[in-house]
Amino acid sequence: MDDTRIKKIRIDRPLLIEQPTDLFYLTGLELSKGRLLIEPSQATLFVDGRYLEQARKKAPCRVDHWDRFQQVQVQEIAFDSAFVTYEGVLSLQKQMPRVHWIAKPKPIRDLRAIKEEKEIAALQKAAHLTWQGYKHAMGLLKEGITEAEVALEFEFYCRKHGASALSFSPTVAFGENSAYPHYRAGQTKLKKGDVVLMDVGAVVDHYAGDMTRIAYFGERDPQIVHFEKLVAEAKQKAIQAIRPGVRFGLLDQIVQDTFAAANVKQLYIHALGHGVGLEVHEFPRIRFDGEDRDVLIQAGMVITIEPGLYQPGVGGVRLEDTLVVTETGVVNFFDGR
Amino acid sequence: MDDTRIKKIRIDRPLLIEQPTDLFYLTGLELSKGRLLIEPSQATLFVDGRYLEQARKKAPCRVDHWDRFQQVQVQEIAFDSAFVTYEGVLSLQKQMPRVHWIAKPKPIRDLRAIKEEKEIAALQKAAHLTWQGYKHAMGLLKEGITEAEVALEFEFYCRKHGASALSFSPTVAFGENSAYPHYRAGQTKLKKGDVVLMDVGAVVDHYAGDMTRIAYFGERDPQIVHFEKLVAEAKQKAIQAIRPGVRFGLLDQIVQDTFAAANVKQLYIHALGHGVGLEVHEFPRIRFDGEDRDVLIQAGMVITIEPGLYQPGVGGVRLEDTLVVTETGVVNFFDGR
Repeated sequence: MDDTRIKKIRIDRPLLIEQPTDLFYLTGLELSKGRLLIEPSQATLFVDGRYLEQARKKAPCRVDHWDRFQQVQVQEIAFDSAFVTYEGVLSLQKQMPRVHWIAKPKPIRDLRAIKEEKEIAALQKAAHLTWQGYKHAMGLLKEGITEAEVALEFEFYCRKHGASALSFSPTVAFGENSAYPHYRAGQTKLKKGDVVLMDVGAVVDHYAGDMTRIAYFGERDPQIVHFEKLVAEAKQKAIQAIRPGVRFGLLDQIVQDTFAAANVKQLYIHALGHGVGLEVHEFPRIRFDGEDRDVLIQAGMVITIEPGLYQPGVGGVRLEDTLVVTETGVVNFFDGR
Repeated sequence: MDDTRIKKIRIDRPLLIEQPTDLFYLTGLELSKGRLLIEPSQATLFVDGRYLEQARKKAPCRVDHWDRFQQVQVQEIAFDSAFVTYEGVLSLQKQMPRVHWIAKPKPIRDLRAIKEEKEIAALQKAAHLTWQGYKHAMGLLKEGITEAEVALEFEFYCRKHGASALSFSPTVAFGENSAYPHYRAGQTKLKKGDVVLMDVGAVVDHYAGDMTRIAYFGERDPQIVHFEKLVAEAKQKAIQAIRPGVRFGLLDQIVQDTFAAANVKQLYIHALGHGVGLEVHEFPRIRFDGEDRDVLIQAGMVITIEPGLYQPGVGGVRLEDTLVVTETGVVNFFDGR
């Protein structure tokens, strides 16, 4: 890995990066503990004895021992105040009292939001394996199988076929359980007439897949079929509106309006989607009234679009695609799937 | 779950708990986001809409909506400064400017260190499944199998037999790879004459197993056999010294002295062990010169003892047991294993 990413960070004062995913993004090294100090003219990675040899071979910057961080000669350092604990800041202040410590939350959030070609390729691979795992799990559906069994089979398939982990604990919801968007997978057994909602993702080459689909086991509940039609329409409309320069909030507003026209807006109870990359939930959060609502869509962003409708006692439908924004629209990793 | 644990917390001012594992320990609820405010006369759990119904049914205390936390009428609140980020504290101060916020790192660390009978039973179950998974993995050893394949088979076995997760990403190290204590599992293939080091753990009923063993595949390297004899002796001596009232640092000092007498002290490069419970690494860290060295051993503590010797280019030996401290000594979950 070269230092291209480090050099892309615009800094007006020395910046300290400690969040492990940020460290991996900038150095290519998986460090449970490390400090990357980025100064206008150089960058230095401080690691302890465990990582020193590996870092000296592979880091795209100077490497020094963790204990020597205290000796750096700078007057001020910006730190990631959304990662460092309050106790951590007290400790920095005590160890280096001459440094002026400046809070700067999520300093490379915007940089990480725009994906490079090889990141997009990894996300596409993660999407592909996620789909293969889903198809495998679908093939196992039979009366009496439990949600937890289906979730485990999805996981085993993905792990055997190259996933280093799952993006998150899978949601496999049978029947009425699908009405709860944060349901995971329990001991409920599959029975005829159930809807099957699966929200799943595999991690491939460090990047996270994320997808939601529903399937019908036996007879279709007309209410669920109605929800599915509306959700599919809302998803389609939102995706069609994606292009560089559009406000993220508008996408969710389109979904809100679609559901309002069908008198089901009150059954839509979460955000429309989120950025995805090394982490499954990244900036921005796509919500008409959320803090990222005025963020402008840019080419190279990879996001999910996942509208849903939920009726307690009946069931729910959520449909989720992951896609990359291009100069003219999108490439949907789940198109035709 | 009742409120016994909450009532055991000695507070001199209102205390806010937000760390998810602490919340689970005190309420029995798995919350990705929640605030438990413990006051001298009452406790209140604040959760958002996702968890409100479940919390009202199961929490061992009052439950209120997340948004109402800002309205609590108290003058000061202690918060877990080793969990809350700097940004999180700024946000609390801004939202509730009349409250005096007081940093209190790891406020229930000591309470969690003493395990109840049912916690000990869960830890023993986790140890048992960890051992079963290890035996299963050992049965698969053959020339050419990779470390990653063995690690995955260990994981699949445990997950199929009741583990909700692994305690940590397994270490499976063949031959020279065993010389690195933080090695995980790679694409190295097993060959005759290799030592096989496995450091593994399964999570059962929320509690973490943790165990390390070595095995020989084919001819035994005399150097490794020598290390094994010394490490086994050091482990035995340390465990024999465990009883309530003894300083934790002494256990590691015994191991340091044992290795010094055999002229191998410089090959022992990590702490002797740690507490284990809902998390695999809990208080205390057992190290002769560590910050917990003067903590006194108490009955009900569950800890690991894991001395090791590492020779780069040759290999390493680490032997790790998990055990519970009793009034008179220990019950070792891995005795005879």
